[in-house]
Amino acid sequence: MLALTGPAFADDAFNVKEIGSYHVGGREVHLEGLPVKMLKFTPDAKPLKSDPNGRFEVEQMYVQYVRLADPKAKYPLLMWHGGGMSGVTWETKPDGQLGWQSFFLKAGHDVYVSDAMERGRASWARYPEIYKTEPFFRTKAQAWTISRIGPTFEGRKEYDGQQFPTGSFDQLMKQAVPRWGSENNAPTQAAYDAYVQKQCPCVLMLHSQASSFGFKEALRHPDLIKAIIAVEPSGRIDASTDELAKMSGIPHLFIWGDYLKDVPIWGETLLPTLESYQDDLKKAGVPVTVWHLPEMGIKGNTHMMMMDRNSDVIAAKIQDWINDAGLMK
Amino acid sequence: MLALTGPAFADDAFNVKEIGSYHVGGREVHLEGLPVKMLKFTPDAKPLKSDPNGRFEVEQMYVQYVRLADPKAKYPLLMWHGGGMSGVTWETKPDGQLGWQSFFLKAGHDVYVSDAMERGRASWARYPEIYKTEPFFRTKAQAWTISRIGPTFEGRKEYDGQQFPTGSFDQLMKQAVPRWGSENNAPTQAAYDAYVQKQCPCVLMLHSQASSFGFKEALRHPDLIKAIIAVEPSGRIDASTDELAKMSGIPHLFIWGDYLKDVPIWGETLLPTLESYQDDLKKAGVPVTVWHLPEMGIKGNTHMMMMDRNSDVIAAKIQDWINDAGLMK
Repeated sequence: MLALTGPAFADDAFNVKEIGSYHVGGREVHLEGLPVKMLKFTPDAKPLKSDPNGRFEVEQMYVQYVRLADPKAKYPLLMWHGGGMSGVTWETKPDGQLGWQSFFLKAGHDVYVSDAMERGRASWARYPEIYKTEPFFRTKAQAWTISRIGPTFEGRKEYDGQQFPTGSFDQLMKQAVPRWGSENNAPTQAAYDAYVQKQCPCVLMLHSQASSFGFKEALRHPDLIKAIIAVEPSGRIDASTDELAKMSGIPHLFIWGDYLKDVPIWGETLLPTLESYQDDLKKAGVPVTVWHLPEMGIKGNTHMMMMDRNSDVIAAKIQDWINDAGLMK
Repeated sequence: MLALTGPAFADDAFNVKEIGSYHVGGREVHLEGLPVKMLKFTPDAKPLKSDPNGRFEVEQMYVQYVRLADPKAKYPLLMWHGGGMSGVTWETKPDGQLGWQSFFLKAGHDVYVSDAMERGRASWARYPEIYKTEPFFRTKAQAWTISRIGPTFEGRKEYDGQQFPTGSFDQLMKQAVPRWGSENNAPTQAAYDAYVQKQCPCVLMLHSQASSFGFKEALRHPDLIKAIIAVEPSGRIDASTDELAKMSGIPHLFIWGDYLKDVPIWGETLLPTLESYQDDLKKAGVPVTVWHLPEMGIKGNTHMMMMDRNSDVIAAKIQDWINDAGLMK
């Protein structure tokens, strides 16, 4: 599979059977008793009476897919984004280079990119009437440090040898979307569950916050999830060894970048939490592969490794692992 | 072009050079002096201190494109959605059938589908600190009547012979996104302007609220806009005959569905406003084509005609018009 390393097929066209999308999950909410307001909807139009009471669809998620005319993979690849982001995570990188959606399409996968409930094209619902709290907007400084690009946003200080294209950092921030707190986890999980039941069997690629949603789906539907690729997962699930053993047929790949020890929330909280999950899975007989990229000679990767300059190198290694797991035709 | 009528090429694969996306426009905002809060971001994680003060990217828009290996059209086709919606408008229809994105890709256009500022993957900004007012959430009842599906949502009463797949109406409502009032028009226009300057020359397809944004771009950049297809436009621009004459090289197609006289905001306000614009353009020497579909024997179309059961029939007529305008290679 050396031909897949680097942008060797960056300019290749590919034959598409269908590009499409759908919303899945969600429910109707009926609001009553809210005050009527006057709002202006169109330039040059008079203000119109706006009655917020009525029926709405809420808690759905959005799925966009590209199905190949001749897929080489046995199952569709579902890419789930992390917190404060949308499916754009997997598309063209902030620096304008091809992202992992394109990489895995060209490697022969039908690729499904989704926006979780409350993010992007999934839409979001009125608060506090439907969602219970207000959303959180991540600042540039928070994104800079939690993504492990560098120690401080002030002066845009970078870690030595880090791989994120920092000249495109503001472009990354244009991709950011508001998020809500953990009170929205249950309906988010419910939408993911509807998605898995509609679209799988499949392979899940999970980034950051998506991990605990994906892990839970694998436990619920071990027959439908054929592999899990966890890219810097930020959450685990709690289950007994007997329960986790239901996933013994699901190979798990965990991928970790660089500088984890430099950021306390990673080195002291999230990594140890996920290492305990890796161990629990192994004890339960689940096939677990753990990659610490720096130990493999791949240095400088941030939490947004799918956007890093060397993203193709990592993608090619993932594709090799998918091959070895027997998931290609 | 009879071969294009109906879903004749619905099952054809097509050769794609690149699928990608970018955010364009926008600016940095620096918030200061807001109170710090405690928020929970991940299931099972402790609440974390959330400082809302800092720097954000706001007012950008989102653009997703599919470039063909061998486009037959001279220029990319940019599809701009209407109010309360995102680019999903143009994708797979609520009833699961192929939408206009697919139709025009298969007809040989590089197709660009965008989310305007504040909608979908474009993201939205904190209010009232950045956006000045609160958003508007359209109810099912409002969408039913303003889309001219039927006279009343109560009982889901339909107009005789209407073409929207009403069994999929709730799926349409899952596509809906919050919108803000006209105070957001100036930055929305600015983002569209950045988009046009980045991506055009092009052909614009404008639905509903997008019309006044697109008309203004055509007036600003008559060299960059090669044609305008206005699908039930809801807003006009005001300009002198001399100014409008700058667009004499831009063929304009206006498309109107059925039941306009049954809904006062359409029959008494929006249609007359746009008819005056059609007349003003003609007086200025701009080539204007106006289609009232019922007069052409195409009956029952709603405001969401790109999702109606007979959407392919209308798309094929648009493709004929594009051909006749000399916009195919």
